[in-house]
Amino acid sequence: MAMQEWVNQMLEVVADLGRNYLENPGKKHSLTSIEEMCRTLLSRRGEASGTALAKEIVDSFNKMNHPARIDFLKMLSEKFAPDPQTISNAAKEYLANPEIETLGKLSRAVEPPRLDLLRLLNIAPGGTSCIVDMREILLQELKKNKSLEPLDNDFLHVLKAWFNRGFLQFERIDWNTPAVILEKLITYEAVHEITGWRDLRRRLAEDRRCFAFFHPALPNDPLIFVEVAFTKGVASKIQPLLSLKKTDNRSSQPDTAIFYSISNCQDGLKGISFGNFLIKQVVDSICNEMPYIKNYCTLSPIPNFLKWLSKEYLNRESIVFSKPELKLMTQNEWFFSDSIRQTLKDKLIRLCAHYLCLEKKRNRPFDPVTRFHLGNGAEIENINWESDLSPRGLSQSAGLMVNYRYNSAKIVSNHESYVNDGRIAISSKVRKMIQ
Amino acid sequence: MAMQEWVNQMLEVVADLGRNYLENPGKKHSLTSIEEMCRTLLSRRGEASGTALAKEIVDSFNKMNHPARIDFLKMLSEKFAPDPQTISNAAKEYLANPEIETLGKLSRAVEPPRLDLLRLLNIAPGGTSCIVDMREILLQELKKNKSLEPLDNDFLHVLKAWFNRGFLQFERIDWNTPAVILEKLITYEAVHEITGWRDLRRRLAEDRRCFAFFHPALPNDPLIFVEVAFTKGVASKIQPLLSLKKTDNRSSQPDTAIFYSISNCQDGLKGISFGNFLIKQVVDSICNEMPYIKNYCTLSPIPNFLKWLSKEYLNRESIVFSKPELKLMTQNEWFFSDSIRQTLKDKLIRLCAHYLCLEKKRNRPFDPVTRFHLGNGAEIENINWESDLSPRGLSQSAGLMVNYRYNSAKIVSNHESYVNDGRIAISSKVRKMIQ
Amino acid sequence: MAMQEWVNQMLEVVADLGRNYLENPGKKHSLTSIEEMCRTLLSRRGEASGTALAKEIVDSFNKMNHPARIDFLKMLSEKFAPDPQTISNAAKEYLANPEIETLGKLSRAVEPPRLDLLRLLNIAPGGTSCIVDMREILLQELKKNKSLEPLDNDFLHVLKAWFNRGFLQFERIDWNTPAVILEKLITYEAVHEITGWRDLRRRLAEDRRCFAFFHPALPNDPLIFVEVAFTKGVASKIQPLLSLKKTDNRSSQPDTAIFYSISNCQDGLKGISFGNFLIKQVVDSICNEMPYIKNYCTLSPIPNFLKWLSKEYLNRESIVFSKPELKLMTQNEWFFSDSIRQTLKDKLIRLCAHYLCLEKKRNRPFDPVTRFHLGNGAEIENINWESDLSPRGLSQSAGLMVNYRYNSAKIVSNHESYVNDGRIAISSKVRKMIQ
Amino acid sequence: MAMQEWVNQMLEVVADLGRNYLENPGKKHSLTSIEEMCRTLLSRRGEASGTALAKEIVDSFNKMNHPARIDFLKMLSEKFAPDPQTISNAAKEYLANPEIETLGKLSRAVEPPRLDLLRLLNIAPGGTSCIVDMREILLQELKKNKSLEPLDNDFLHVLKAWFNRGFLQFERIDWNTPAVILEKLITYEAVHEITGWRDLRRRLAEDRRCFAFFHPALPNDPLIFVEVAFTKGVASKIQPLLSLKKTDNRSSQPDTAIFYSISNCQDGLKGISFGNFLIKQVVDSICNEMPYIKNYCTLSPIPNFLKWLSKEYLNRESIVFSKPELKLMTQNEWFFSDSIRQTLKDKLIRLCAHYLCLEKKRNRPFDPVTRFHLGNGAEIENINWESDLSPRGLSQSAGLMVNYRYNSAKIVSNHESYVNDGRIAISSKVRKMIQ
Repeated sequence: MAMQEWVNQMLEVVADLGRNYLENPGKKHSLTSIEEMCRTLLSRRGEASGTALAKEIVDSFNKMNHPARIDFLKMLSEKFAPDPQTISNAAKEYLANPEIETLGKLSRAVEPPRLDLLRLLNIAPGGTSCIVDMREILLQELKKNKSLEPLDNDFLHVLKAWFNRGFLQFERIDWNTPAVILEKLITYEAVHEITGWRDLRRRLAEDRRCFAFFHPALPNDPLIFVEVAFTKGVASKIQPLLSLKKTDNRSSQPDTAIFYSISNCQDGLKGISFGNFLIKQVVDSICNEMPYIKNYCTLSPIPNFLKWLSKEYLNRESIVFSKPELKLMTQNEWFFSDSIRQTLKDKLIRLCAHYLCLEKKRNRPFDPVTRFHLGNGAEIENINWESDLSPRGLSQSAGLMVNYRYNSAKIVSNHESYVNDGRIAISSKVRKMIQ
Repeated sequence: MAMQEWVNQMLEVVADLGRNYLENPGKKHSLTSIEEMCRTLLSRRGEASGTALAKEIVDSFNKMNHPARIDFLKMLSEKFAPDPQTISNAAKEYLANPEIETLGKLSRAVEPPRLDLLRLLNIAPGGTSCIVDMREILLQELKKNKSLEPLDNDFLHVLKAWFNRGFLQFERIDWNTPAVILEKLITYEAVHEITGWRDLRRRLAEDRRCFAFFHPALPNDPLIFVEVAFTKGVASKIQPLLSLKKTDNRSSQPDTAIFYSISNCQDGLKGISFGNFLIKQVVDSICNEMPYIKNYCTLSPIPNFLKWLSKEYLNRESIVFSKPELKLMTQNEWFFSDSIRQTLKDKLIRLCAHYLCLEKKRNRPFDPVTRFHLGNGAEIENINWESDLSPRGLSQSAGLMVNYRYNSAKIVSNHESYVNDGRIAISSKVRKMIQ
Repeated sequence: MAMQEWVNQMLEVVADLGRNYLENPGKKHSLTSIEEMCRTLLSRRGEASGTALAKEIVDSFNKMNHPARIDFLKMLSEKFAPDPQTISNAAKEYLANPEIETLGKLSRAVEPPRLDLLRLLNIAPGGTSCIVDMREILLQELKKNKSLEPLDNDFLHVLKAWFNRGFLQFERIDWNTPAVILEKLITYEAVHEITGWRDLRRRLAEDRRCFAFFHPALPNDPLIFVEVAFTKGVASKIQPLLSLKKTDNRSSQPDTAIFYSISNCQDGLKGISFGNFLIKQVVDSICNEMPYIKNYCTLSPIPNFLKWLSKEYLNRESIVFSKPELKLMTQNEWFFSDSIRQTLKDKLIRLCAHYLCLEKKRNRPFDPVTRFHLGNGAEIENINWESDLSPRGLSQSAGLMVNYRYNSAKIVSNHESYVNDGRIAISSKVRKMIQ
Repeated sequence: MAMQEWVNQMLEVVADLGRNYLENPGKKHSLTSIEEMCRTLLSRRGEASGTALAKEIVDSFNKMNHPARIDFLKMLSEKFAPDPQTISNAAKEYLANPEIETLGKLSRAVEPPRLDLLRLLNIAPGGTSCIVDMREILLQELKKNKSLEPLDNDFLHVLKAWFNRGFLQFERIDWNTPAVILEKLITYEAVHEITGWRDLRRRLAEDRRCFAFFHPALPNDPLIFVEVAFTKGVASKIQPLLSLKKTDNRSSQPDTAIFYSISNCQDGLKGISFGNFLIKQVVDSICNEMPYIKNYCTLSPIPNFLKWLSKEYLNRESIVFSKPELKLMTQNEWFFSDSIRQTLKDKLIRLCAHYLCLEKKRNRPFDPVTRFHLGNGAEIENINWESDLSPRGLSQSAGLMVNYRYNSAKIVSNHESYVNDGRIAISSKVRKMIQ
């Protein structure tokens, strides 16, 4: 009963703020009243009712439709930005007298109030999750509206602090995992679609591994996960790995861990890198559990290969493709003709090697997947023909896939050469393909 | 085996950095080599070996003696501060052209590199705990060395983000709690010493409650905890609550929850307030479990009452104390003489009421415990005579203790009056004492 | 390494026993060698290698095909029965001298050695589960072969001891439950088929409840589970409850818990009753969580109603059915003609009431579901027309379903009247139907 | 509210049974009314109120004083025994016609009703624990009253079924274990007293291991636990292991696990052997975690050595002891004289070897600890001089202790020789001592 009174009083505080807009319960707050609530939350006055206020704002945002959410974000961007006059004054003071005190004043002046606001909203139950959602929407809007960039920087600033690797929990996912988490895998899988619970179950069988990072504030929501299969030798084709039939491994012990799918789950956490850490921890974990695994490789897509190819070559005769070849490739379903395929095989593999190893943008590989793995210290191990025969595989990369190898003994040196000199680690096999 | 190589290579990287100082394994790194490691960690070069490097620095700090740790902190303060020249340039640019871009540049210029460094150190296993320890040492040093203040601001900045209320876990502590946590209570109890496991067990018995906040990165280390007893009527004496004998509650159902001890556990988290949130959540939790509890009150010490009294009155005859009275009070053990005690009783209670309610510092109560509870929205309910007869209780406050009442129906209005106007909520009983 | 030796030695012991049949690893043991292993396990000689031996026998059974399993059970029945000569001697001794010692001897003489054997097999990992499986097979075989009855009594004896209510764990099942358990629900649901994960998810949504009993030795395998829906008023139709659409309960708070499905999961535990305990604990749990729920009723099938009806009435003209009516009912799809349906409605309901309340076998209701709920102390609350329109519902009971009500205030007296006098608790509504 | 009614009604049923004895609530039931409750529980009538009735009986027993509990047990023994007339009839029928049916009848006739009663009492919350307590009291009474033996057999029968090894949980106990369990270790430690929490903490430090078996129905109560220390070489002295100072193991990796204390915790489970299984599982677990441990040995007391010695030798001059020696040994504190000690050392060791290896009772070693370890397949490895210098160690065994070695490669053969031929496995070192 006593608590009830308290809750009632909280609600009154909230109601006071948005009285005019609150004729009937459940009615949505206007943007003005939400702005007012945000200001109260930021003031000392909001301390006693802090959690209730934060909850009200978070709930309001969750109930908004898309345009209202954009308005909310613009409000944060415009109304909770640092004050130019204060900054100017502080900047002048600092220039006149560059001391600890003036620097402190300047630092406080440039810090946008919305940073603190985000920290206070996080107090609400479900606050973290809501803030991640806000940023997801913000990132979409950002494409159209560059003026939101400073706001995005502020979101990124707090999220980077909160999702620090030191707070992430590394967990194995298998058939003992609660269904509420498993259904997220189906939703989030970005590389090779999971077609349903039967498919999911196969990927989580005892002869597979799946690992994820979780954050304590999002307990049922993975941040990133990776799926691993075990093979004898480095797998060159994806379809057998995705097949629902269980491989009979009894005859020969596997020696290779194949990372065949890595999916980031939270669009709102873009720019905070987890993959690097996850892959290394998975290598570590498998290494401990199965000392007989000697190779750690990916079987990765080449999402933009054909797009690049068509832009660079397919529109014109060139040294690479003769006119008849070009014609062949533009034919529908060229891939399904054995003879045409054989004709083009070598050329495509070589072009792909070229694309991966030599095609650069700002001195880094053009291909995003390549950039990711090389940046982690991996090397380009092999390019596989007829490796992904799904419609997507064919249309993106003519069925080609790449193995990147994580060779523990070389990860650091690979990474350093890559970071310092842009040098790319390439196996001798692939090296030959480019020659 | 493969992992072994990797680890070896990590160690090599680290060794490279501090080669000269690493003649024999286990030898400590010099400050110079640690600074070098910190720089590498901050550079992109450190990414691949990030966790290993962070671990090395954290381990090094943990092994340092006190003077070396102070040197480390000074190094952070001096070598990883923002660059004045860059700030000046950015300030000028901003003044010339106050736009998003120049503001962004200015923001980045004033942000000290050590902020990022702390975030990277947090990646190490045990990183969070080490950073909290660093700040604990820093706070001690700060008393002597004000130039470390900006560094402390940076520590506070990251710790506030990480220990956001939204990430804290509220947990009941009882006899089912692991011993590794229970022994921390004995260590951290700051108000009424826990004399051993028998005492602890009594405080955690079924007729008591103890609640704490935990952070996921410090799983066995409470941040703050509160101990609660249940009584019929508002308890006015502390010793019966601390007695090892279990009270026989069968005759009458309790109606009051007494918060008789609140202890902050992590000195390194000073300035991040948990008590407010904890008390409210405990009220909420008890309210749910025992709807028959109607009063939520503390039984709190008045740590500085006699100190203040002696400074203000005891050195001179005054309207308050006659010469003979003063003489009585300066006699050793005056408290243990019934007649003297009776003579002084009313006067002391009235003076205490005056001290709590009227004695101010910057328009806030002089007493820190009073400030804390009034700031949370509580009111001064009662002042109790012969309430804490321990040596400490007698020497600090002549045995007086205070009840602060958390009346859910008034918390918000109390808080607001206090924050806005410095008005203090006082029960009619205490009001009479001041008249 | 040392352990390896041990394991090797265990395997040797086992191999010794079945040497002839163990030419190549993985080969199955012969029945003779398994019998030998069982004898060793029972002897003191088997103590040191007990777990290994038990494991070997359990593994062997698990690998057997069906006929081999039957042979194994027959072997238990014949070779591990008590010895008639010993029993006769002990019986004579007892008759001559009925004392504690002779009674002890007689007790030991009648106890079959296979009882101890089952207890020893239980030591193997997965032993309990295997023994439950053995009994499932035994129960099937028992229909053909009555001589196995004593063996079944022995299985029942140990299983009753192990699956004592005091050892069962009552657990809520929802979407946070591990998938490995959830998929069992799909398999085991015996009343209203779960059509897939989507259907399952609906039944486990927040506005529903599902509870199960588990045994610590079968952690991922429920013994029995019940599904509950909440309604305003006692639900009279099953299809809306099974619909995938979530009911909008916001307008009116539910007041009734409907138990719409109870499924026993382990055929091998037949004869050990869990349902009674489960229903009462579920009532208890809901009562605690939702004090506003006032009615606890089932919506239950009448599996044999039409079978009984056709046997009793449908083959001949009678006072109940006129010739034309009989003709109507034998017409295919009579139910889907509105007019025919209306003609028969009252008659069918009255006949169903008669069937449930008056049709007896050994002074207990003929219908098994009725027997179960009345035995638990429930009463027959209502009979619902057009209640289960699924093909099964129509073919079993002409679409009729029953509500049994668990009225806490009457459970004990209902149960006692039923047990002592065979009296059946019937609501006034149903009472009118029989008149 | 509904539940409340139910509970009320339960209580009424119970009250009915013991009306006369229930003038005021809380008053204890008379033995007659408890007997009546037991009969109702056994009848079908008790089904609906089963749990409530069982709870009432269990609660009554728990509140009884010792004499009342003995009366309760005698009541079970006398009033719930099998009926002699029924047995006689069944025995005659069987002898006349030894068939499945008559055997079944005979089996049922000899089964005491109290077996079923115990199974029904187990349903009460805390039932299992109460039944274990009942047997503990019964075992004490049994020493005086042999007529209770059949009752004890029945208790043993149900407890053996319930505490089957297949249901025990093997768990490590360390400083992360809840205090409620840890305090039990202090209570139950039977070999080397734990002097308090500091001592306990040392025994649970990271360089030690402690493992226990638990049963799901007694979650906070270990059944048996073993304490293990790690040493370089086989430890020959107990005091260093019990010392509160942590050994510095950094210089040399341990190669030996010393089992220095094994304690059974539940007197009521006497006759159900857990130690054998526990030791083997601990060996297994350590073997997995620390492959570098090569020796698994105990450091065990010889509880009856001096008692035996004094009975056999100390009262008379013999070939073994000369008159002066005997005189020396009967002197108080002989052990603390260096010269006397040295004189007697060899003789005592040889006599101890003789005692352990050759002194038999029914072809098994006289010493109970020796019987236990040899029965498990261990061998007598060594006898240590000045090994336990505590008062108890000196008074029981003149400070001698034994190492029994668990050599995985020999456990099975040792066990079999011992069981079949009573042959004892003795190391060459000890073999020399007996010559």
